Amino acid sequence: MTRAIAPSLVAVDWGTSHLRIWLLGDDGSVVAEHGSDEGMSTTPREGFHTVLEAHLAALAVPLDVPVMMCGMVGSRQGWAEARYLALPATLADIAGGAVRIPDLPRDIFIMPGLCKPDERYPDVMRGEETQLLGLHRISPVAGDRIACMPGTHSKWVHMKDGSVTDFVTFMTGDAFAALSSHSVLRHSMADAPVDSASPVFREAVRMSLDCPADILARLFSIRPASLLEDLDPVHAKERLSGFLIGEEIAGARARLSLPAEIDIIGGEALSALYEAALSEAGITCRIHDGKELAIAGLAGAANAMPDGAAAG
Amino acid sequence: MTRAIAPSLVAVDWGTSHLRIWLLGDDGSVVAEHGSDEGMSTTPREGFHTVLEAHLAALAVPLDVPVMMCGMVGSRQGWAEARYLALPATLADIAGGAVRIPDLPRDIFIMPGLCKPDERYPDVMRGEETQLLGLHRISPVAGDRIACMPGTHSKWVHMKDGSVTDFVTFMTGDAFAALSSHSVLRHSMADAPVDSASPVFREAVRMSLDCPADILARLFSIRPASLLEDLDPVHAKERLSGFLIGEEIAGARARLSLPAEIDIIGGEALSALYEAALSEAGITCRIHDGKELAIAGLAGAANAMPDGAAAG
Repeated sequence: MTRAIAPSLVAVDWGTSHLRIWLLGDDGSVVAEHGSDEGMSTTPREGFHTVLEAHLAALAVPLDVPVMMCGMVGSRQGWAEARYLALPATLADIAGGAVRIPDLPRDIFIMPGLCKPDERYPDVMRGEETQLLGLHRISPVAGDRIACMPGTHSKWVHMKDGSVTDFVTFMTGDAFAALSSHSVLRHSMADAPVDSASPVFREAVRMSLDCPADILARLFSIRPASLLEDLDPVHAKERLSGFLIGEEIAGARARLSLPAEIDIIGGEALSALYEAALSEAGITCRIHDGKELAIAGLAGAANAMPDGAAAG
Repeated sequence: MTRAIAPSLVAVDWGTSHLRIWLLGDDGSVVAEHGSDEGMSTTPREGFHTVLEAHLAALAVPLDVPVMMCGMVGSRQGWAEARYLALPATLADIAGGAVRIPDLPRDIFIMPGLCKPDERYPDVMRGEETQLLGLHRISPVAGDRIACMPGTHSKWVHMKDGSVTDFVTFMTGDAFAALSSHSVLRHSMADAPVDSASPVFREAVRMSLDCPADILARLFSIRPASLLEDLDPVHAKERLSGFLIGEEIAGARARLSLPAEIDIIGGEALSALYEAALSEAGITCRIHDGKELAIAGLAGAANAMPDGAAAG
């Protein structure tokens, strides 16, 4: 009988609405995983330790296996506040910036966030910094690179030779949810995924790229299109998505110097939408899986811990 | 004892969340008024006639006094659908376009809406057309004029010699409500009115005018400003308002040719905000009270009715 090998590290991404746990072997590969919807919005502060250890017990993880966590678990409303590192931040700063939660029987670390304390353009990220660390481990690039990380609060990140030098957050997904559910547009929306191949989506992206200024009018126009032209609810949603994603790209162009090719870090469906939208802006993409990069980043941070909480 | 004079006309503005009734004398002056929150969202279709006649009975209005109504009461979800007139529409078209609700003991008319059946920029209005009629009665202008009508769905209207030739709707107020209550920004907002003299408001307007493209980033930035700089919730709301109103003006500039002076039609607080914002764009304003214009428009439409349902 083969003796089961204990994992070297427990990698955790703990956000507002989800908890993901990966057990990593010595080489950084995933040997087991668990996901649940026990995000922070459903876990009281005193409950974090209990919830985590219950899962680790179920996964038979010995107490001497350390845990490296990223995500909103390190925010003010999370388990323990892990500070923001201010830009510019090297990836070594990020990797070495995890903080140990005191007074626990197990070594549990939380990754730092990043902040831009700019008076005109203040910004913060928490969780994405770990994926950027993973990006540089898996796919190192010398010189400048731009990473686009689509989501509720999409991040566009300028990195140079392993440092994060600038980033901009666009509340695209958040605005999409708020407008499609709580504005007049809710009467026109289908409850269906947006197809990246849809010409309606692509045309909407183009309109935002060509004239970002009239976004508040173009968003409203979805409603009269329903009333006057019987706009299909699926197309209405594609139009809303294209208008907003196109507006995000227009904003990224205004704020950052965009190269001909950028990195996208995210889930499959959203990455496909952004790839299609970026092609309308003449930009090609290297697509990276968000989960894979989070795991690589957490493993990289564990390697950087002084007591050698290493895994791959 | 002076005998009470029956009104010549009942003017009604019946919207989604409000009902306003004005009794007008021969000269168009208001002799009595009543307001309530019995908007269409709380009134079942079969209830409109009952609700109205109950108020008219309480106001002792004889059955031979006609009623002229504007607002969403004429929409598909209202009492009776009054069609849209397509642009271009003369003010005479609007005045003469009211439809009588059939089979009622009283003459009750509903104003038509306006529509722009443009494939790329479709648009609709319902209720504002009556205020435009009132504008031209109270304050006629030869040649071109632009009217800005701020609200949940702000309208910008191009009129020429008594015709409505173009209009654009911006969902500014709707987006403000959705984002301030249902996005991440809800954690940062005060529940207080926005001060038009606030330098925070004006600076936010300027940022939108200078660079409308990055609106989705500037909106998000309110959140890190709260986290990193302890942004006062009152200032957070002023910033959100300024960003959105500034974005609307940037869009209006992109879509319409704006003169040095425009008309604002609206309520007092919102008109003051827009006047302040427009001054940042180098545009001065003639401010008109929205209710006064609605009344004048309804009276004008009554004058145009063939059976002489006239008042002022």
